[in-house]
Amino acid sequence: MLTLYYSPGSCSLATHIALIDAGADFEARRVDFAESGQRKPSYLAINPKGRVPALVTEDGTLTETPALLAYVAQRFPAAKLAPLDDPFAFARVQEFNSYLCSTAHVAHAHLRRGARWVDAANTAAIEAMTRYVPVAMTQIFELIDGRMLKGPWVLGEAYSICDPYLYTLSTWLEGDDVDLDRIPNVRDHRARMAARDSVERARAAQGLPA
Amino acid sequence: MLTLYYSPGSCSLATHIALIDAGADFEARRVDFAESGQRKPSYLAINPKGRVPALVTEDGTLTETPALLAYVAQRFPAAKLAPLDDPFAFARVQEFNSYLCSTAHVAHAHLRRGARWVDAANTAAIEAMTRYVPVAMTQIFELIDGRMLKGPWVLGEAYSICDPYLYTLSTWLEGDDVDLDRIPNVRDHRARMAARDSVERARAAQGLPA
Repeated sequence: MLTLYYSPGSCSLATHIALIDAGADFEARRVDFAESGQRKPSYLAINPKGRVPALVTEDGTLTETPALLAYVAQRFPAAKLAPLDDPFAFARVQEFNSYLCSTAHVAHAHLRRGARWVDAANTAAIEAMTRYVPVAMTQIFELIDGRMLKGPWVLGEAYSICDPYLYTLSTWLEGDDVDLDRIPNVRDHRARMAARDSVERARAAQGLPA
Repeated sequence: MLTLYYSPGSCSLATHIALIDAGADFEARRVDFAESGQRKPSYLAINPKGRVPALVTEDGTLTETPALLAYVAQRFPAAKLAPLDDPFAFARVQEFNSYLCSTAHVAHAHLRRGARWVDAANTAAIEAMTRYVPVAMTQIFELIDGRMLKGPWVLGEAYSICDPYLYTLSTWLEGDDVDLDRIPNVRDHRARMAARDSVERARAAQGLPA
């Protein structure tokens, strides 16, 4: 039995969708960011980083979305969520997910989490970061749209753990003030994902609008 | 035959070391950042992201250090650079490397690459980022030192692809103004790595001091 700790609509949605895609037996537990639940001792005992997602397994607790997604694919191989027997193809999956994690998610995080990278009292610097988010996110998603997303799914014909991760970050784009007309392939991918049963179920479980 | 594109002392050093650890047949080619070699059309044709590392394989070009390290481990399984047959243990490797990529490297990048996240003309904001790097990097490396690095290697007794990556980032710490006395386990790990033949050879190949 697995337990996923999530905050609604955060990057933890990607692992939530993948667990449903995999047919995993799991429980989802909400961490209430509005009450700083991620910094309470009870949660820090589970994940000392004070972030979501965290996935509690029989062997221990795992964090970091690219690791969780690869774990779901490897633990539930019958679901065929990644090309597990081909090191190059598997590296392509990791390359895509690592880019989302270290470049796309990080650029987005400058919207409201600027205090990770400058003194929290420096409101001018934090506001400068917020203002630049549309520029950085547009550049990043244009690269994804034009060079990485093969269609209909990220890897091409085969749905994989890359898809729920891209979908999750693409739900942030209006909030990041990115013009979706510039990234039509990402917009179409998001619509394709939204029609999947696993996405509908994960969104409903997190209390997100349909 | 593999070709690694690198810039001396950058995060590409991790893959360089791992390739030597793996006994891989590869060629290393320097990208001259001083001449903006990473933005020249000839290099952008290899890696449109304009970054290093890039690893050219018979099947195509791979980027993103966590993906390259996992590829090296999976392609050269006899070198035993990762626990390939245990999804949980492999996820631990990915979790560690993903944290280095998306949190540690990103915090470090605010020292000189602030223009990724604010308007390049906003020197006050860029300087504010630079000033905060010692704070962020100390927090991150204290977590690595106290909670993640098991010793003598990252995973414990088994050397893995986590070790060259941690080593590479830890060589940046003096430049980031982090007090190494606060992270004695990381300091010891760095010294242990520096004594390895693969590290000496990779550093020599990149023209770095011994």
